[in-house]
Amino acid sequence: MTTQQILSLNAFQPEEGVGLADDVARLVARRQRSFGASSVLFYQQPLHVVSASGAMIRTADGSEYLDLYNNVPSVGHCHPKVVAAVQEQVAQLNCHTRYLFDNVHDYAERLLATFPTPLSNLALTCTGSESNDLALRIVRQATGGAGFIVTETAYHGNTAAVTEVSPSSYKQGTPPRHVRMVPAPDPRNFPGDLGAGFAAAVRAAIAGLEADGIRFAGLLVDTIFSSDGVFADPPGFLKPAVEAVHAAGGLFIADEVQPGFGRTGSGMWGFARHEVVPDVVTMGKPMGNGIAMGGVVTRPELLAGYCDAFGYFNTFGGNPVAAAAGLAVLDVIAEDGLIDNAAQVGGHIAERLAAARERCPAIGDVRGAGLYLGVEIVSGDAPDPEGAKRLINALRDRHILIGAAGALGHVLKVRPPLCLTLEQADRFVDTLEDLISA
Amino acid sequence: MTTQQILSLNAFQPEEGVGLADDVARLVARRQRSFGASSVLFYQQPLHVVSASGAMIRTADGSEYLDLYNNVPSVGHCHPKVVAAVQEQVAQLNCHTRYLFDNVHDYAERLLATFPTPLSNLALTCTGSESNDLALRIVRQATGGAGFIVTETAYHGNTAAVTEVSPSSYKQGTPPRHVRMVPAPDPRNFPGDLGAGFAAAVRAAIAGLEADGIRFAGLLVDTIFSSDGVFADPPGFLKPAVEAVHAAGGLFIADEVQPGFGRTGSGMWGFARHEVVPDVVTMGKPMGNGIAMGGVVTRPELLAGYCDAFGYFNTFGGNPVAAAAGLAVLDVIAEDGLIDNAAQVGGHIAERLAAARERCPAIGDVRGAGLYLGVEIVSGDAPDPEGAKRLINALRDRHILIGAAGALGHVLKVRPPLCLTLEQADRFVDTLEDLISA
Repeated sequence: MTTQQILSLNAFQPEEGVGLADDVARLVARRQRSFGASSVLFYQQPLHVVSASGAMIRTADGSEYLDLYNNVPSVGHCHPKVVAAVQEQVAQLNCHTRYLFDNVHDYAERLLATFPTPLSNLALTCTGSESNDLALRIVRQATGGAGFIVTETAYHGNTAAVTEVSPSSYKQGTPPRHVRMVPAPDPRNFPGDLGAGFAAAVRAAIAGLEADGIRFAGLLVDTIFSSDGVFADPPGFLKPAVEAVHAAGGLFIADEVQPGFGRTGSGMWGFARHEVVPDVVTMGKPMGNGIAMGGVVTRPELLAGYCDAFGYFNTFGGNPVAAAAGLAVLDVIAEDGLIDNAAQVGGHIAERLAAARERCPAIGDVRGAGLYLGVEIVSGDAPDPEGAKRLINALRDRHILIGAAGALGHVLKVRPPLCLTLEQADRFVDTLEDLISA
Repeated sequence: MTTQQILSLNAFQPEEGVGLADDVARLVARRQRSFGASSVLFYQQPLHVVSASGAMIRTADGSEYLDLYNNVPSVGHCHPKVVAAVQEQVAQLNCHTRYLFDNVHDYAERLLATFPTPLSNLALTCTGSESNDLALRIVRQATGGAGFIVTETAYHGNTAAVTEVSPSSYKQGTPPRHVRMVPAPDPRNFPGDLGAGFAAAVRAAIAGLEADGIRFAGLLVDTIFSSDGVFADPPGFLKPAVEAVHAAGGLFIADEVQPGFGRTGSGMWGFARHEVVPDVVTMGKPMGNGIAMGGVVTRPELLAGYCDAFGYFNTFGGNPVAAAAGLAVLDVIAEDGLIDNAAQVGGHIAERLAAARERCPAIGDVRGAGLYLGVEIVSGDAPDPEGAKRLINALRDRHILIGAAGALGHVLKVRPPLCLTLEQADRFVDTLEDLISA
């Protein structure tokens, strides 16, 4: 199943649009006129949102929803510190980086200090898609190769080049020949030693590329395998695959758009859990808590190699407003203790859900790290995407927002703002148990 | 000469970095450590900027600079109305468009109302690069072709796919076989009827693609040919080329990232001056006055064709903060009469510069529309890139900021915020004359 199809599992379908509130029906009609075929809305009853703070979203009818879906406002919707930083900067200066100004350099140094030493250069972009697009080109330039390996249900962004390495984006056809897919690192796909099994799959894909005369360039994975259905354990399982990549002369791109900035509850970056040092790291979504910003971190010689051929300039990349937002995000992660909170609250949810399985046989595997969890919904031993869809819409009716992931779309995706409290976590687990029991 | 090389014409060169102020030297050093090879700074003496308003930029040493370069803060740096809109929205709600909220639909309708009828669908992105990347894929999907035609010194953005259609981005090598280049629509390249000549070049490029077995997809041009050196006249010269494209089954993409939003002084869009209706229009830079936003406007069936194959979702695209900024920009363009101002002040500069040629033989061709002007710097009849570079740095020392364009880099590029006053325009012309005479 493609990401598009998984989205449509819990997406509003116009033909199901009965009983919509007047304001919602009017907005849906306006939206379909303006956005046409590109309009995708969540839920059988779409939400008309008006404001948000912390992990709560408010709708036009005065209701409040607990947000377990949104990883962009990662330090909390409209966090006062980020809001104040943006408000102050936007009134003062907003320009490109061909002039010097202070805060983007403060930001670059603060961000780079969170990476292992060899990763000491930063290129700022506006989105995770732009980051992955640039990463692909850096790796192509450095290796002289064109062949990339990704997981079967990978999603890395929306540019032409990044769509090619995003198998889940294909509604028709498949990625081009230079892109090879390996199964998600689901222990069920690799019985025994997961790391060894995943590395063997990567080695086989490299051999396949070379057999077809396509030089291997690199491995690109989201280090928590979000769209594959969330695979985090055991920590370190990526290491043999990365060693295989390097042994074959390729480079490893860690896509930290989703796991990055503390979400996994152990340090800032998902790759660190695997004790690997990537060649290129890409960032996006939570970087500016909603202000469009992304980035690529790499070794100076890799960036220089690319810049010798093309150079890179991004008009909005690193602008002072984005830098102000980014600095505030780093401050809040530290000051509000969000990495520890992700570990504690995420761990609490995982424990409670694992314990709930006895009473709720519809709950299958519960996995993930910190506040990125995947919860399989099953019927007997079989994945149950329709059950997941019913639960997602039922949770929405109980004012809890959640989404789905995985190749079959039967995995509930729990990735709230990192400020989620234990009480909010309990409300989610209680409601889920209640709905499954009913 | 590539855009990279043209930029480096008026770029800071570390080996020339003598006599830098302490604060500038410190920032340059920090920048080179963090940004590495991707660092490009303007001017032999880079600017350390701290604030800006209207068409003025202030530096850390308390100086003020007249800004004739920046087309992103198009309604004026830190325009109070845009600032207030962003400040209010960022405190209230900032999320993706899979929920409904009002202001993005207000924006979509206001924006679409400025386009001719068939162009009634909008996809929101974050940058002009993302917009052109999506446009290429829409046109590929609709035509089944891969072959694109662009001008020789075109620049359309920084993604992998868009770099391929940006010949000016290549420091080494040339664009791939599916990209064909035609000369810029400089009357000197096409003596006689410019429109007929340019169309003949496009037809020849189409024939070349087909002869090589590459199906023609479309023509992509910036409708004021910014990086080619600014070519605007006579209005209508694009029409025969667009007819040739359609006759060959191709589509026409109008890149309005630079000419759009009123800059040409006659309506909102550069294509309208040419009496053509594009199949796809792309937007970026000035759309949010510095808040990252871009967009693609097209016919519903073209967007639907693409979405049948892939769909399109952009995490930050159309977020409420960007929509608020975009709405404020549309308001300010109307309320402050910026299109008329662009016509009046741009016309005034063009007239004065044309008149100055008698006294200043270094001024060659003066051309453009509204507040997008190209001013050739020549030595005798020959283009003089070194003279342009000296003038750019000398203007900077007189506190006027300007850049260069064109295949040889000898064209001064005048594209200030659209609120430029007649007095500021006179200051520029007086100073330029003064420098040339000296």
